[in-house]
Amino acid sequence: MKNKIIIKPKLLKGTRDFGPQQMAKRQYVMDTIVSVFKRYGYDTIETPVIEYAETILGTAEEESSKLTYTFADNGGRNIALRYDQTVPTARYVAMNYANLPMPFKRYQISRVWRADKPARGRYREFYQCDVDIIGTESLLAEAEMIKIMDEVYTSLGLKDARIYINSRRLMNSILSSFNIPTPVQPEVIRIIDKCDKLTPTDITAEIVEYMSIDVANELLGIISISGDNDSKIKKLNAYDVSEISIILELAKQWGVQMENIIFSPSLARGLDYYTGVIFEVRIPGVDVGSVCGGGRYDDLCSRFINKKISGVGVAFGFDRTIIAMEERGLLDNTPLSSKVLVTYFDDTTLPYSLDILNTLQQAQINAEIYIEPATLSTQLKYANKKQIPYVVIVGPDEMKTNIVQLRNMETGIQETIPYTALQTYMKNV
Amino acid sequence: MKNKIIIKPKLLKGTRDFGPQQMAKRQYVMDTIVSVFKRYGYDTIETPVIEYAETILGTAEEESSKLTYTFADNGGRNIALRYDQTVPTARYVAMNYANLPMPFKRYQISRVWRADKPARGRYREFYQCDVDIIGTESLLAEAEMIKIMDEVYTSLGLKDARIYINSRRLMNSILSSFNIPTPVQPEVIRIIDKCDKLTPTDITAEIVEYMSIDVANELLGIISISGDNDSKIKKLNAYDVSEISIILELAKQWGVQMENIIFSPSLARGLDYYTGVIFEVRIPGVDVGSVCGGGRYDDLCSRFINKKISGVGVAFGFDRTIIAMEERGLLDNTPLSSKVLVTYFDDTTLPYSLDILNTLQQAQINAEIYIEPATLSTQLKYANKKQIPYVVIVGPDEMKTNIVQLRNMETGIQETIPYTALQTYMKNV
Repeated sequence: MKNKIIIKPKLLKGTRDFGPQQMAKRQYVMDTIVSVFKRYGYDTIETPVIEYAETILGTAEEESSKLTYTFADNGGRNIALRYDQTVPTARYVAMNYANLPMPFKRYQISRVWRADKPARGRYREFYQCDVDIIGTESLLAEAEMIKIMDEVYTSLGLKDARIYINSRRLMNSILSSFNIPTPVQPEVIRIIDKCDKLTPTDITAEIVEYMSIDVANELLGIISISGDNDSKIKKLNAYDVSEISIILELAKQWGVQMENIIFSPSLARGLDYYTGVIFEVRIPGVDVGSVCGGGRYDDLCSRFINKKISGVGVAFGFDRTIIAMEERGLLDNTPLSSKVLVTYFDDTTLPYSLDILNTLQQAQINAEIYIEPATLSTQLKYANKKQIPYVVIVGPDEMKTNIVQLRNMETGIQETIPYTALQTYMKNV
Repeated sequence: MKNKIIIKPKLLKGTRDFGPQQMAKRQYVMDTIVSVFKRYGYDTIETPVIEYAETILGTAEEESSKLTYTFADNGGRNIALRYDQTVPTARYVAMNYANLPMPFKRYQISRVWRADKPARGRYREFYQCDVDIIGTESLLAEAEMIKIMDEVYTSLGLKDARIYINSRRLMNSILSSFNIPTPVQPEVIRIIDKCDKLTPTDITAEIVEYMSIDVANELLGIISISGDNDSKIKKLNAYDVSEISIILELAKQWGVQMENIIFSPSLARGLDYYTGVIFEVRIPGVDVGSVCGGGRYDDLCSRFINKKISGVGVAFGFDRTIIAMEERGLLDNTPLSSKVLVTYFDDTTLPYSLDILNTLQQAQINAEIYIEPATLSTQLKYANKKQIPYVVIVGPDEMKTNIVQLRNMETGIQETIPYTALQTYMKNV
C-alpha cells in the first residue's frame, strides 16, 4: 500500500451521525407518527433538498435569509438548501394546483438546514415533521389537527400530552376592546407570549409601557383566567370566542380525550405567520418546551401564486419528542433488526446452520448467521452488541440429532428444541 | 393585500418533486427492500448531508471531485454535499470502529448529489440504496448478497431478475495466463466490459491494440463460454475459479433459486474499486441497464484509518428498479393512504359522520371525512383523485335508521350496510 495521507474523520458541528440503536428509536417514532397521519388520510410528497435560492429566500429580506445555506453551482445558478418544508410545499402546491385533490392533505418528514451557530438542541441539520391540510377554511380542519396530535402522542405512549389551543382572532378582539391600537398589538402579544417564562410582576412591568397599570391588570386577568374550557369560554363570551367553542365541540364529537385539551387565552405562538387558531403541545414534567405546534395560516402560497390559500398545519418536534420519550423510558427496548443469530462454527455444520436460517427467514423472521467461523464467545458477544434476543446454537451433535440449542440472551436460559419446532416457536416469542 | 412580487415557481433541472401517487409507489418499493435487508439482520445508520469538503473529496484529484457540490459556509469552512453513501459510511466506521459490532452489517437509503449536466435518467439529486457487510473476508458474505438480491427482486415481483456474477481475481488470472502485463490489464478489462454493447467484431478490433488477433480470439472465446454455471466452472478450472465455485455452492445451500444466477466471466463492473467478486442484476426485456450492482472491496476506510477493512456490498438502483416495475405493471395499483372517505353534507349529519369515522379509525382503518360540507359529486370527485376505494355516504335518512350507503369506487356498486356491521365489513375488504 502506498504511503497515503489519512484524513481525520470528523463531523461538522451541528450535524449528527445516527448509529443503529439511535436509528431504530428514530424509525419507531417516525413510523408511529406516519401511521397516524395515514390513518387520517394524509399522503406524503417529497421536494428536492436543493432549490433555486430565489424560491427558498423570496424577495423580502427575511430573518431566515441569513440562516439559509446558499451557494453558486457550476453553472453560476444561485442554489439554496431548504430552510423549512413550508416554502417548498407552497412552491409545489403553486405548480400543481390544478391537478391536486383539494383540500390537499399532505405530510412531510425530512431534513432542513440552518446556517446557524450550533448550541445544545440547536442543529444545522435536523428533521421537520409537518402535517397540513391546505385549501379549506372549515373549522373541522382544526378539530382534525387536535385529533391527530392527541392520537400521535397517545400512540407514542405520552398519553398525558397537553394540547393548548388559542385563537389569534380572539386575542385581537380582546386587545381591541381595551383600545390598544392595531400597530401596538403585536408588541403586547409578544409580551403575553412570555407569560409562561416570566413572573406576573415582570410581565406587568413590561406591559405598562403600552397601557396604564389598571388596564394592564385587567387585561392580564382576562387572558389568565382559570377553570375548565367551558367556563373559560363562558367568561370570555364578550369576545370573539366562537371558533374555539365550535372546534372544541367538533373535537369532542370526533372522540378526542378532552381532559388533555386546554383552552389557553394567553397562548401567542408564531405571531406573524398564523392568522387563526394556534396550537402547542407540552409534556408535563418534561423540560424541553413545546414538542409540537402549529395553527391556521391564510396565505401559504402568496410568494408563488396570486391566490389566497388558507390552511391549517402542525409541526411535530422530532428531536424534542424523542427526548421526552427517552426521559419517560419509552424507547428503552426498541428492537433492532435481527431477532435470531444462528451460529457458524465450521464448514461441516454450515449446511445445517444455513438450512435453519433459511427456514426462519422464509417464515419472515429476521435472522442472520454469524458470517464467518468463530468461537461461541465471539458470536454471543456479537449478538449482545446487536441486541439480538435469541441465539440458535448448532454444533455437530445438534446436527446429528436434528435439534438446536436456543439461548435467550436476556435471561441466559438455554433450551433444547427439535429443529422442526423452531419456526413455530420463534414465531410465537 | 399589498402589491407583492410573485416568484415563478420552478425546479432546478435534474431535481424532482414526487407527488402523492409517485411517493406511494416509491415507498412501497423502499419498504419492500428494507424489509428484506432487515430479514437478513442489517440495521440502518444515517450520516449528515453536509460534511467537511475534505471528508467527501479526499486528498486525491478524483473523477468525483468536479461533480461534487462544494461551498464555503458563513464561517469560511469548506462544505460538500455527499456524493455517495460509501465515503460517509467509511468515515462513520473509522470514527466508531471500536464500538461497532463486527462484522458490521448496515443498509442505507438516502439522497446523494452530483453537480452534473442533467440528462434522461441522470439526476443532480437521487437516492442510493446500499447494503454492505463490512469487516469480513468470508465468502459467505458474497453468498448472502446473492440471497438478498434474489429475495429483493422476488419480493418486488421481478422473479426473473438475473443475477450475474464474476470475479476480478479470476479475470486477472485469465489475463495473466495470456501474458498480458498488469498495467495493460485494466485497459483490456475496459474493452471486455463493453461485450454487451458492442458486436464481437468491434470488440476484437479494439482488443487487438493490446495483443495479436489469435490471442484476442482465444481470450474472447474463454470469457464468453456458454453453458450452465457448473460447466463454465469446469471449463475454466485452469484459472482461479474456486471462489465462484464456493459462493455458488453456499448460495444453493442457503436456498437461492439457482436458475437465475449466471456466472458470467466477461462481467467487468466497477474496475478500480472492486477487488474480488462482482455482481450485477438485469431484468430480461427491460432496457434500463443493470438495476443493481456491487462486489467486494478491500480498503473501504483507508481514507480515514490506517487499517485494511474488507467488505462486500451491493447498491440497488432505486429509479431503475421502479422503471422496471412500472414497465411490468407492478406498481399500477399501489394504494394511497385513505381507504375510506366519509361524506359531510351539513351540520345536522356531521356528528353521525364523525362517529362513523372515529369507529373506522379506532379499528386502524385509514379513513377521512371530507373536511367541509359539499355536494356528493364534489366529494366523489375528491375520492377519485385520491384513489380512495370506498365512500361511506350518510345523509339524514341513513342517520335516522342507523345505516350507511357504502360505495365501491371501482365498481360503482353501492350497498346498504347497518352501521354496526361497517367496521367488520371494512376490515375484511
